[in-house]
Amino acid sequence: MRLSLGCEVGYDVLETATLIFNIEAMRGGRQQVLNEQLVISPNVTADEKTAHESGNRYLRLTAPPGYLHVRYTAEIELDPLHRAPAFIGEVPVATLPLETLPFLNPSRYCPSDQLARFAVREFGNIAPGFGRVVEICNWINAEVDYQFGTSDSATTAAGTFSTRAGVCRDFAHLGITFCRALGIPARFVSCYAWQLEPQDFHAVFEAYLGDRWYLFDPTRMATLDGMVRIACGRDAADTAFATIFGAVNPQNVYVWANALDQNTSAEWTTDAVSTQD
Amino acid sequence: MRLSLGCEVGYDVLETATLIFNIEAMRGGRQQVLNEQLVISPNVTADEKTAHESGNRYLRLTAPPGYLHVRYTAEIELDPLHRAPAFIGEVPVATLPLETLPFLNPSRYCPSDQLARFAVREFGNIAPGFGRVVEICNWINAEVDYQFGTSDSATTAAGTFSTRAGVCRDFAHLGITFCRALGIPARFVSCYAWQLEPQDFHAVFEAYLGDRWYLFDPTRMATLDGMVRIACGRDAADTAFATIFGAVNPQNVYVWANALDQNTSAEWTTDAVSTQD
Amino acid sequence: MRLSLGCEVGYDVLETATLIFNIEAMRGGRQQVLNEQLVISPNVTADEKTAHESGNRYLRLTAPPGYLHVRYTAEIELDPLHRAPAFIGEVPVATLPLETLPFLNPSRYCPSDQLARFAVREFGNIAPGFGRVVEICNWINAEVDYQFGTSDSATTAAGTFSTRAGVCRDFAHLGITFCRALGIPARFVSCYAWQLEPQDFHAVFEAYLGDRWYLFDPTRMATLDGMVRIACGRDAADTAFATIFGAVNPQNVYVWANALDQNTSAEWTTDAVSTQD
Amino acid sequence: MRLSLGCEVGYDVLETATLIFNIEAMRGGRQQVLNEQLVISPNVTADEKTAHESGNRYLRLTAPPGYLHVRYTAEIELDPLHRAPAFIGEVPVATLPLETLPFLNPSRYCPSDQLARFAVREFGNIAPGFGRVVEICNWINAEVDYQFGTSDSATTAAGTFSTRAGVCRDFAHLGITFCRALGIPARFVSCYAWQLEPQDFHAVFEAYLGDRWYLFDPTRMATLDGMVRIACGRDAADTAFATIFGAVNPQNVYVWANALDQNTSAEWTTDAVSTQD
Repeated sequence: MRLSLGCEVGYDVLETATLIFNIEAMRGGRQQVLNEQLVISPNVTADEKTAHESGNRYLRLTAPPGYLHVRYTAEIELDPLHRAPAFIGEVPVATLPLETLPFLNPSRYCPSDQLARFAVREFGNIAPGFGRVVEICNWINAEVDYQFGTSDSATTAAGTFSTRAGVCRDFAHLGITFCRALGIPARFVSCYAWQLEPQDFHAVFEAYLGDRWYLFDPTRMATLDGMVRIACGRDAADTAFATIFGAVNPQNVYVWANALDQNTSAEWTTDAVSTQD
Repeated sequence: MRLSLGCEVGYDVLETATLIFNIEAMRGGRQQVLNEQLVISPNVTADEKTAHESGNRYLRLTAPPGYLHVRYTAEIELDPLHRAPAFIGEVPVATLPLETLPFLNPSRYCPSDQLARFAVREFGNIAPGFGRVVEICNWINAEVDYQFGTSDSATTAAGTFSTRAGVCRDFAHLGITFCRALGIPARFVSCYAWQLEPQDFHAVFEAYLGDRWYLFDPTRMATLDGMVRIACGRDAADTAFATIFGAVNPQNVYVWANALDQNTSAEWTTDAVSTQD
Repeated sequence: MRLSLGCEVGYDVLETATLIFNIEAMRGGRQQVLNEQLVISPNVTADEKTAHESGNRYLRLTAPPGYLHVRYTAEIELDPLHRAPAFIGEVPVATLPLETLPFLNPSRYCPSDQLARFAVREFGNIAPGFGRVVEICNWINAEVDYQFGTSDSATTAAGTFSTRAGVCRDFAHLGITFCRALGIPARFVSCYAWQLEPQDFHAVFEAYLGDRWYLFDPTRMATLDGMVRIACGRDAADTAFATIFGAVNPQNVYVWANALDQNTSAEWTTDAVSTQD
Repeated sequence: MRLSLGCEVGYDVLETATLIFNIEAMRGGRQQVLNEQLVISPNVTADEKTAHESGNRYLRLTAPPGYLHVRYTAEIELDPLHRAPAFIGEVPVATLPLETLPFLNPSRYCPSDQLARFAVREFGNIAPGFGRVVEICNWINAEVDYQFGTSDSATTAAGTFSTRAGVCRDFAHLGITFCRALGIPARFVSCYAWQLEPQDFHAVFEAYLGDRWYLFDPTRMATLDGMVRIACGRDAADTAFATIFGAVNPQNVYVWANALDQNTSAEWTTDAVSTQD
């Protein structure tokens, strides 16, 4: 599937400030960046680098006082792997790849140690494998209300578990937390999401199952095979779309993600989907 | 039922310090103090008063450096009211007695606002009345592990709800929190409890139903009609058995509560039980 | 001083709901309610009672679906006691009146146990007495930014201590917390405040010193002798101006407090001020 | 300086379990592992890998039920870089190496966003550079009590900031938090520490200044040039010396670090010290 996507963000810069953006689509895996444009106004130099381990692309710029406008557009060829869920198992900690182990640890928004008893009580008797993570997503979708204004940047998965309300990042944090508590590596993914309503940066998670990272979205607000990865990390603390150093007032954020072929099916997949090789 | 009960507490007082104890059995209602003795060593004067509203009895003393030993013994005639649970309803907020209203508010250990969505989801469809509070206790008893060392003096009901482990005070806090979230006044009760194993100060809760406060114990560790009230309040912050002002090291606590008649039945009641007129 | 004050609050009631208001000026002490009017629209019956211990006045009403409007107006004669701060001492816990003791305990928003080390480090060497509480207020005023949007209904004094920002209720909570940590009973007071800008319900605190409760306002946003008490309690959890049971959307709040004599001095007092006999 | 160091850890394994250890001295930089031995009893196979980015060495093993004993010993040649503090500056965010940027983000135990106002108030006017981080350490050392039993595995730097008490990991977390709030990358380091009393795994932090990571120890309990790095990460969540998957009861931990040359000076350095090239 081919997508045209992008975002526009605007800031009122009060004093010269440095901003680090993480808004560009990841390259590699099953996600190909066909072309992309970045327009920064005023025309300051941007320093761009890709983190080795995560593949996250960081754009760092120093802006003078005044209005700062950043517009990113890209065309993406997305060819996610589809697999039958039934044959995808969990991997014992004893044989997990080393690089997945940090994603078993509790992190800022995902205190998997605090929710471990509940996770084992609720999901411990479900057969291990892809289906167990689906059950986790089912639980979150059924038990947590999706509602703006019920959480903030300090909300952890333990908070969401108690209040039973949140938005996409809270849903993802809770999913990650339960997975880790069960010994399944899980990480946070920010993305562009086709058909998401209303459009915004989306947050989902990946769990390491079988031989790769598979996508899960407990909000069920967009189809898994229309998600274009921007960044991954332990939780939202690692994947902010903008990190600001200086006196800057955010003004606006627009995000879009459209299928280029009008005939693209709107049917949502129930396959196991991965955009990682 | 007649009980012989009491406690011994010892402290290493490093510098002259003031201590406020709340260890004496309440008087009045359906709990009669037949006789009681208080031995304080060294023989300092104690200032004793009963709070008007709660009936809690406070014993205040100022101790010189050295070992402080307080021994309280009492014989209690306990004649709790027994009622059939089926006919005890909840009282609409519109007609609750004014003095019960503070027990609807969130308090330090009982953040009923934070757990309100869950309480309504889980218990909102159960028929109002005594039986609904029994269901709350059933839920706590089934879903929370009773385990020493899993909580501390900072643990709130939201924490216990997340970690799913705690001791009697945590069980009581969670019960109070759910009740308040459903519009049922609930308060914390510290007590001596017959047949509690191991013996210690116990913590349960009362909910206001029908025309009075009924006892509930989500731990199910002692029979409701063998509980002798010491203090009540919004939560454990109001009912500490000892509050210390000064440099004092606690040394030991012994608590006991025995039936004076050997033939007292060990059968636990399933009636609605109240010790309040 | 004579004040004309009041408030108007409006709600969109979605289903029949019960609301408990605590907006009327307290009676007694050095605060006399000359006259007052309460207009409730639609014209439902309100059940009004005064709590024995606190003197808080509760107004309970059950409103049908539709717009609910409550308007309270009053004329108040305020004759606060003024005393020279220099001669007002702290009272040892050993001789404090029993009814002040609950205001030494940690409470929901005032975890005085958690901030005790800091309080003793920072204020422990200041000479006990009224002046020490003034120093606490000076510290809060200097170290905490008054800023809307930096706190919410879950913010405790420990949170405010960390983030160093809040509004009047957070300032009061922090003052109460430090006082309790030093063995000074302290309680939360909601009030109408003359010359407060912008007008709103105000929150201050009282500390028990010498032989009575004295007012303190770490925000320094209004003069102490122009404050008309509405309610007092352990912290904001006890003094909400409206507690809502049912599906109700708050619409608006207007508050005012004007001096009736135009010549009333705008000079702010530095005396010790109490409105309690 | 040459050190002989190591640790012994013992576990009661109840059911076959997987454990991941991170107890081996890092290789590279200015820290050379001359020789090392690892004895695991019973003699199970251990899977050993070094993380690319951090250099942390992970030892993974699966143990049968029974007593598990792991003993690690090593001889280390430590040749830390010493520099004069006066000429080491902070690096503007605009020119920091990309790989240091994650260490500016808040993390689980280091909520630098929550303590940002305080950090700027307290340390914002100090001249940027190495000396500012020394001032941060001075502040922590003066204002926080080092005391066992005052913190636990859930304690964040915001908690330590409020309670003003903690142990080495809490001291390090607070230092990291303040640095990040000021725009200085900072990370957690677990280590063997010569002359630490009592001996245990130690925790310190590194700040990125000038052209490299420098060590800081706000506890001042050991000299900086006698610290042998085990692991580094965002905070303690990344550097646990043992992570356990399964039913295992920890039994004992012994740690040691001795100078091999008896004449090694016991004088503590005040230089800027780095073990990273």
